[in-house]
Amino acid sequence: MDNGKVWGFKPNANISLDSSSTIRGILGMLMDSRDHKEERPVIPLGHGDPSSFPIFRTSQVAEDAVAEALRSANFNSYSPSIGILPARRAVADYLSRDLPYKLSPDDVFLTIGCIQAIETTLAVLARPGANILLPRPGFPLYESRAAFSNLEIRHFDLLPENNWEVDLDAVEALADENTTAIVIINPGNPCGNVFKYEHLKKIAETAKKLGILIISDEVYGHLTFGSNPFVPMGVFGSIVPVITVGSISKRWIVPGWRIGWIVITDPKGVLKETKIVDCIKGCLNISTDPATFIQAAIPKILEKTKKDFFSNILAIVEESAEICYNEIKEIDCISCPHKPEGSMFLMAKINESLLEDIIDDMDFCFKLAKEESVIILPGTLVGLKNWLRITFALDQSSAREGMGRVKAFCKRHAKQLQ
Amino acid sequence: MDNGKVWGFKPNANISLDSSSTIRGILGMLMDSRDHKEERPVIPLGHGDPSSFPIFRTSQVAEDAVAEALRSANFNSYSPSIGILPARRAVADYLSRDLPYKLSPDDVFLTIGCIQAIETTLAVLARPGANILLPRPGFPLYESRAAFSNLEIRHFDLLPENNWEVDLDAVEALADENTTAIVIINPGNPCGNVFKYEHLKKIAETAKKLGILIISDEVYGHLTFGSNPFVPMGVFGSIVPVITVGSISKRWIVPGWRIGWIVITDPKGVLKETKIVDCIKGCLNISTDPATFIQAAIPKILEKTKKDFFSNILAIVEESAEICYNEIKEIDCISCPHKPEGSMFLMAKINESLLEDIIDDMDFCFKLAKEESVIILPGTLVGLKNWLRITFALDQSSAREGMGRVKAFCKRHAKQLQ
Ligand SMILES: Cc1ncc(COP(=O)(O)O)c(C=O)c1O
Ligand SMILES: Cc1ncc(COP(=O)(O)O)c(C=O)c1O
Repeated sequence: MDNGKVWGFKPNANISLDSSSTIRGILGMLMDSRDHKEERPVIPLGHGDPSSFPIFRTSQVAEDAVAEALRSANFNSYSPSIGILPARRAVADYLSRDLPYKLSPDDVFLTIGCIQAIETTLAVLARPGANILLPRPGFPLYESRAAFSNLEIRHFDLLPENNWEVDLDAVEALADENTTAIVIINPGNPCGNVFKYEHLKKIAETAKKLGILIISDEVYGHLTFGSNPFVPMGVFGSIVPVITVGSISKRWIVPGWRIGWIVITDPKGVLKETKIVDCIKGCLNISTDPATFIQAAIPKILEKTKKDFFSNILAIVEESAEICYNEIKEIDCISCPHKPEGSMFLMAKINESLLEDIIDDMDFCFKLAKEESVIILPGTLVGLKNWLRITFALDQSSAREGMGRVKAFCKRHAKQLQ
Repeated sequence: MDNGKVWGFKPNANISLDSSSTIRGILGMLMDSRDHKEERPVIPLGHGDPSSFPIFRTSQVAEDAVAEALRSANFNSYSPSIGILPARRAVADYLSRDLPYKLSPDDVFLTIGCIQAIETTLAVLARPGANILLPRPGFPLYESRAAFSNLEIRHFDLLPENNWEVDLDAVEALADENTTAIVIINPGNPCGNVFKYEHLKKIAETAKKLGILIISDEVYGHLTFGSNPFVPMGVFGSIVPVITVGSISKRWIVPGWRIGWIVITDPKGVLKETKIVDCIKGCLNISTDPATFIQAAIPKILEKTKKDFFSNILAIVEESAEICYNEIKEIDCISCPHKPEGSMFLMAKINESLLEDIIDDMDFCFKLAKEESVIILPGTLVGLKNWLRITFALDQSSAREGMGRVKAFCKRHAKQLQ
């Protein structure tokens, strides 16, 4: 460092310098803390990206569509800031299948995965003094991006005893005239729950009453295997305006391709009238875009992927979820309040009183990584201390092996009964 | 709209709702204002993206590298937030060729084109009260992103009579203790100038004196054909810390692929010490990433592209620049103060006094689009009213045809001498 020199730059305090505050950061730290003499392979129960398992290879149709667009050399140019029309039309058609009315391409804005959809939506809503209602447990990118944009965060609980439904009384108590939106994630990350039609309708009615919009994160849309079918929040767009965010990352197992969307499900046109739509366009106009040739592949990806591909993936995920859930039942010191029905995750509670030398979920996960080469996300990262977020999006033998190691770990660290 | 309902959301006032304030927005409006009965093809002298001309097709090496990475199915996963190591190493090696010291992969952060590099860098520097020095004329994304992040903008002039060099006296007068950085764009957009080694060194010394860092936008790096060679600002990294932003968009003619970088050229480690580097990582940690399989192609793209490819592209660009420059000399009411030597643009001044019924640059460009189907960017968009930004990155016959139509247009609108 240049001794004594006074420099005029300081980092932005709204951006955390602490990488252990993000899922990516902590998962990286857990990976690094493994015992490097360990010969067993690492079992990644931490993140929602099964694409490295061969059985989760994306559909041939999707890969061919991207290769074809690339090879045509017709899509090397900049794209329009809202995305190319054929791709927007394809997303509109794809999502309209599950809605009581038809979306137009003008309701669709392509983004660089659901992450950019979240970045953009929160930036657009961040006027001074505004606050936003976020679920706890949740997906911490919402907290990070709200902090980035100076949007005040207010948390409402998801209720484990109620199949992780939204605590609507808490929502009503939290909201005030500066509340802009409520975020829901359905199918749920991190809880693996799927909201019932009636519950979604109640959320919509509550939001309408409070005069706030709904941001519905449906990045796990259609990844359901329980008794509740996936119902998009947009179904209730005529009750309250809904901004749906989603992507191809999860259903097609291609999170590295970075294509997602912001979709306005708002048949009454409230978001147009209030200039929210113009502001989304304005924000995308000054933001970077998804790769054009991957956009060009979207119509084929959404229209031509075979049903078999989806049902195979779902069958694997369901079976692995079953394995994880059943194994947890066999482990004394952790418990899962609700059998997962969708997404790629479940939440399991640690019963610290049964453990000898584990002080909390962080300690649990770091020791587990070191001793067993199993990576699990500490619940603290998603807002629930002394819980664990476990992903079941992996092949069955890895799920079995991973949970077996967790069981051995818990046994080894259990308090000895006197 | 739901009558009488009071909604709690309003758009963020730091995001412009006016699409005519961005280059993309205004170019779209110019395209729409063409005469749709016009049978001649549109000549796009507006934007820096020649990828749709067949002679500007990217190198086979680059296309093959991306196809191969896609087909391997090894890169469908999320990437680390700073980019995958082989790609960061390749960028470090590529840029080190022109530096007096060797960059490490840890100095490199991959971004979604240079646009995300700019988004990130400005966000990182935006602490409350801070200001940033931007060139006029310049690239308006800097203004938009500074406004987005609440970073106060102060403009210094580039001097046309001095080959568009930085007005360093103005820079000294503008800076105060809240100034964080000065932005330079070299090779220059919109002026087509290339800064001399000595001038760059003076900029570095001025920045050091003021205690501010340099953001050097080198997205047009190596696209030079005049007497001044391209010198990266990082050469002066030991005088003052430099953040270099760049991408493969321009040199490889693949702006739709969306791969760029932030590179720290700071051998004294000032940016580490002041936590700017941690803040860049923190910002990328909560931001979306470039497509993983395109990142995976970067080593081959940077290392294996043949010299022929670059020299062919440069020869075309140089010849078209020559055509545009010479044609302008033949047109009475516009003039170009300096022959372009690099990038893809030149600036030409309108002599309004010689025009009959054209009130300003906006009027000029809209009438030109309508009457001649030629798209040129009004100088107002880059900060200079009554100038034009003309791109010469197109094939020679289009350049000739485009300038021919501009000449006809100017003749038609010229004041009749009494
Ligand atoms: C709830 C939720 N939203 C958004 C995302 C981001 O998804 P994408 O890969 O589409 O950016 C994730 C990724 O894990 C997620 O779990
Ligand atoms: C000066 C300047 N910086 C940055 C960019 C953005 O480049 P990229 O395509 O790498 O995002 C451009 C594009 O025109 C530019 O002219």
